[in-house]
Amino acid sequence: MTDTIEALVDHACLIVHGPDQRGMVAEVAALITRNKGNIISLDQHSSDPEGGDFFQRVVFHRPNLLAAHPEIEADLDRTLQPFGMKWRMVDMSTRKRMAVLASKSDHCLLDLLWRHRRGELPVSIPMVISNHTSVAEDVRAFGVPFFHVPSQEGPDKSESEAAILKLLAGNVDFVVLARYMQVISNDFLEKVGVPVINIHHSFLPAFIGAAPYRKAKDRGVKLIGATAHYVTEELDEGPIIEQDVVRVTHGETAQDLQRRGADVERAVLSRAVLWHAQDRVIRQHNHTIVFA
Amino acid sequence: MTDTIEALVDHACLIVHGPDQRGMVAEVAALITRNKGNIISLDQHSSDPEGGDFFQRVVFHRPNLLAAHPEIEADLDRTLQPFGMKWRMVDMSTRKRMAVLASKSDHCLLDLLWRHRRGELPVSIPMVISNHTSVAEDVRAFGVPFFHVPSQEGPDKSESEAAILKLLAGNVDFVVLARYMQVISNDFLEKVGVPVINIHHSFLPAFIGAAPYRKAKDRGVKLIGATAHYVTEELDEGPIIEQDVVRVTHGETAQDLQRRGADVERAVLSRAVLWHAQDRVIRQHNHTIVFA
Amino acid sequence: MTDTIEALVDHACLIVHGPDQRGMVAEVAALITRNKGNIISLDQHSSDPEGGDFFQRVVFHRPNLLAAHPEIEADLDRTLQPFGMKWRMVDMSTRKRMAVLASKSDHCLLDLLWRHRRGELPVSIPMVISNHTSVAEDVRAFGVPFFHVPSQEGPDKSESEAAILKLLAGNVDFVVLARYMQVISNDFLEKVGVPVINIHHSFLPAFIGAAPYRKAKDRGVKLIGATAHYVTEELDEGPIIEQDVVRVTHGETAQDLQRRGADVERAVLSRAVLWHAQDRVIRQHNHTIVFA
Amino acid sequence: MTDTIEALVDHACLIVHGPDQRGMVAEVAALITRNKGNIISLDQHSSDPEGGDFFQRVVFHRPNLLAAHPEIEADLDRTLQPFGMKWRMVDMSTRKRMAVLASKSDHCLLDLLWRHRRGELPVSIPMVISNHTSVAEDVRAFGVPFFHVPSQEGPDKSESEAAILKLLAGNVDFVVLARYMQVISNDFLEKVGVPVINIHHSFLPAFIGAAPYRKAKDRGVKLIGATAHYVTEELDEGPIIEQDVVRVTHGETAQDLQRRGADVERAVLSRAVLWHAQDRVIRQHNHTIVFA
Repeated sequence: MTDTIEALVDHACLIVHGPDQRGMVAEVAALITRNKGNIISLDQHSSDPEGGDFFQRVVFHRPNLLAAHPEIEADLDRTLQPFGMKWRMVDMSTRKRMAVLASKSDHCLLDLLWRHRRGELPVSIPMVISNHTSVAEDVRAFGVPFFHVPSQEGPDKSESEAAILKLLAGNVDFVVLARYMQVISNDFLEKVGVPVINIHHSFLPAFIGAAPYRKAKDRGVKLIGATAHYVTEELDEGPIIEQDVVRVTHGETAQDLQRRGADVERAVLSRAVLWHAQDRVIRQHNHTIVFA
Repeated sequence: MTDTIEALVDHACLIVHGPDQRGMVAEVAALITRNKGNIISLDQHSSDPEGGDFFQRVVFHRPNLLAAHPEIEADLDRTLQPFGMKWRMVDMSTRKRMAVLASKSDHCLLDLLWRHRRGELPVSIPMVISNHTSVAEDVRAFGVPFFHVPSQEGPDKSESEAAILKLLAGNVDFVVLARYMQVISNDFLEKVGVPVINIHHSFLPAFIGAAPYRKAKDRGVKLIGATAHYVTEELDEGPIIEQDVVRVTHGETAQDLQRRGADVERAVLSRAVLWHAQDRVIRQHNHTIVFA
Repeated sequence: MTDTIEALVDHACLIVHGPDQRGMVAEVAALITRNKGNIISLDQHSSDPEGGDFFQRVVFHRPNLLAAHPEIEADLDRTLQPFGMKWRMVDMSTRKRMAVLASKSDHCLLDLLWRHRRGELPVSIPMVISNHTSVAEDVRAFGVPFFHVPSQEGPDKSESEAAILKLLAGNVDFVVLARYMQVISNDFLEKVGVPVINIHHSFLPAFIGAAPYRKAKDRGVKLIGATAHYVTEELDEGPIIEQDVVRVTHGETAQDLQRRGADVERAVLSRAVLWHAQDRVIRQHNHTIVFA
Repeated sequence: MTDTIEALVDHACLIVHGPDQRGMVAEVAALITRNKGNIISLDQHSSDPEGGDFFQRVVFHRPNLLAAHPEIEADLDRTLQPFGMKWRMVDMSTRKRMAVLASKSDHCLLDLLWRHRRGELPVSIPMVISNHTSVAEDVRAFGVPFFHVPSQEGPDKSESEAAILKLLAGNVDFVVLARYMQVISNDFLEKVGVPVINIHHSFLPAFIGAAPYRKAKDRGVKLIGATAHYVTEELDEGPIIEQDVVRVTHGETAQDLQRRGADVERAVLSRAVLWHAQDRVIRQHNHTIVFA
């Protein structure tokens, strides 16, 4: 996992996917070689060797990558289109821009800001947006801009969402909901135009929706969990990126579960953000392939 | 956890539960002392310090326990009834009799038999009943009687259940469904008259019902689990005794999940059986208190 | 574990230990009852039922505890001395005062400060002392005093240790070394007069001493860990309070291990500090009994 | 991990290693393609991008593999020798032959036999050798030959080792010490000529040598573990294949640790055996690269 914690000059990450067929690994390897690239790491996955989907992530080093980008892209088009393969190539010297939406809870937000400051997340953080002001001072102490967009009263959130969209527009590559306790409208999802990652405070698909720790206590489970997933139209049904759990006992109250769960939430979210930032996560229907 | 792997002569396990109130721990401790018992271990739990339920498990040593049983019981009645507390006392020199119901899958069944042979489960196993004969030879190699009761065709299982009930009647203290793939009728549950423990091959309440590994694969979860619970009228809704999980990846098929999950199933079930056999599990509504 | 995250008015925590003998649980329970206390929770441990040591932790509620303290203490002396038992009783309305010694690494320090601010650690933090100034601003942002005591050049640290001791004297109940990279002299340990908790960045007893992540990489282990322990005269040999591990692969560099391990270190240290602050940890020779 | 649980006809596993240099992935991919192979999975590792070692494992499908073997091997020699790379290619339709050496403890041995019967281990088991006869009946019930070779009295084990070597000679591809409690002489290691895998009942490098559970209890650790490793001349110092741990408390005796640890031992050993059987483990000096 060492290849991309830092921004890497002259390194590219190439994602290839499409119908599984013979020879794709060799085809892509040959393409990189003839474009003077050197493969650093290569992962692949086939959903089914017979008629399934093929996914590949290749990191390669190529001196003067910036200058060569157009010709490599042309070669990728020329080579992969006949196979019906899609691709995207990312210059790893450019950090993804991550906006964080938060509410009153600070544990996921502060953990992301702190990891970023330590150099553990290869992203830039152009802004944190919250519907409360309680975390403003902490956020700004990390040198990150903070914007307060109060949540609209009532079920119609179009105005507050519009205000958020205006702040995000053109400025971010993905959005993280770090325990942002508002339901995102489908309209927002369509307009934002970048991936949105959420941390849900349960082991999905158990305890979908509100108050999962209360539900976990009511059901008497012996483990509680957290799930990082891409947000889709269906609440808590998007593709799962990462999950983890922690053991609990009958002696712990719903409030204890919340406190214990907070540690799992921040750990799970930080892994999901890291992997997304490194283009290690590929979405396919309602699943993810995670080359971690 | 060392106190009860083996049958313990002159040791009693006392379970007390009822409305939480001041002084119960001292009351019980005094009772044991005046009956010449020495407390070996003591656990307690209060569901809520204000108006909740109180649960206590005490293991004590008392020379000539057998002879003193009646007078201790009389004292318990006399002392605890005014407080509205219920109690049960178990002589730990007597092993609980466990019947295992199995199907074709052998992993949970063999693990129980093997642990029993190693002396890790303080039970006796008077019989294994299966609707298939494939495990007969293995079971009998452990010196355990095997009975074959084929599953009835069609939705009505009353005849095969009656045959099982006849074998169990008076012979067992609890029943373990070790991946017994038949739904148990409420009629069976009422008639069997002893606790029934099931191992469900998912992290409940996720993936209730049939084919949980297929459902887990479809949902794209990153952990799979197993749950041991008491069987109640509602399918997969009974009080959970123990759960655990194992990490999986996108690269694993539903069949891989099944193979990986089998290890979790047998581990979870063996812990649940051990704790039940040691009277460490107290049922309360749809929950368990586990003094493990 | 809910009983003591917050300071609890009119609650006492009583620790009793000494030679194991019959009737101690009942004796202590009766004592609390006759002093008008109500037992909230009770844990006990016997190192060996025959001639071993006995340990008990009892939390009880007693209205007007402060006023009754002297008479309860007199009763404890009177009752327990004939049995050769030692005891200490703590008023749970008083938070322990914790000093943190840090160096350049911020992960353990910030996690403690942040958990304290969230109300997850029942301590007060009168000061953070560091041999570097890099964390000063962060510490003070939490409203905690920061003192800079530079490390002395050369092997003799007596002057810098004396400066630290002067700051601590009378002001703290325990000291936490939150990745404080200086070896503590035995002289310091004797003079400080309060427990000192260290976090070692390996799974002790593996990789004692400096550079454990480098040693772990050299040995090719598949898990790395962290250990919180009381500091004693022997380096990294003190009683272990808590440990945990995380899985690593051949693909991770010593630097990766350090980054991954930091998460384990802060988690392990925070649990050890919580348990110590709640008087859940009893030292016995080179072991701990942890009633968690 | 689905590719090799079963023997796979017309599939080869190619391991390549040598000095890291540009273009190796593409070179190998091209070689497989021109030999009409289709890459199924590909993993690689570089110990250091500057002057380190390169390791690659490629699984490919090639119709009529058996017939093409010699020409592929010739091509591998021709292509890789100029780069100073070494290689070995395994026909995945052939199961490795595994001998198990056991003693009185049956948990690791029975778990391997049982997994093999379930089809979870792509090996054949031509024999089990033990210095005790207690497991003979169990082994033969699995249809596996059992040989009894009593341990020689005294420090000189040359005669019993000679008897074992005679049984193994030419009949096995690797040897597993499934809690075989005898120290293997260097002379045996040299003569046996195949890899030997041991399961050590501690988290190495902690608690090398005899009685690790007793040592773990004495040190007061909060986790106990097991380690599967290749046997080398230095006791318990060989390359580690896999490790795992389980949480323990002050309340557990050394005997409890042994019982709890047995579950970890069998789990760790079965994973190590699976990965070795699938050629997923590459030894490099005192390390392993595990493409799991």
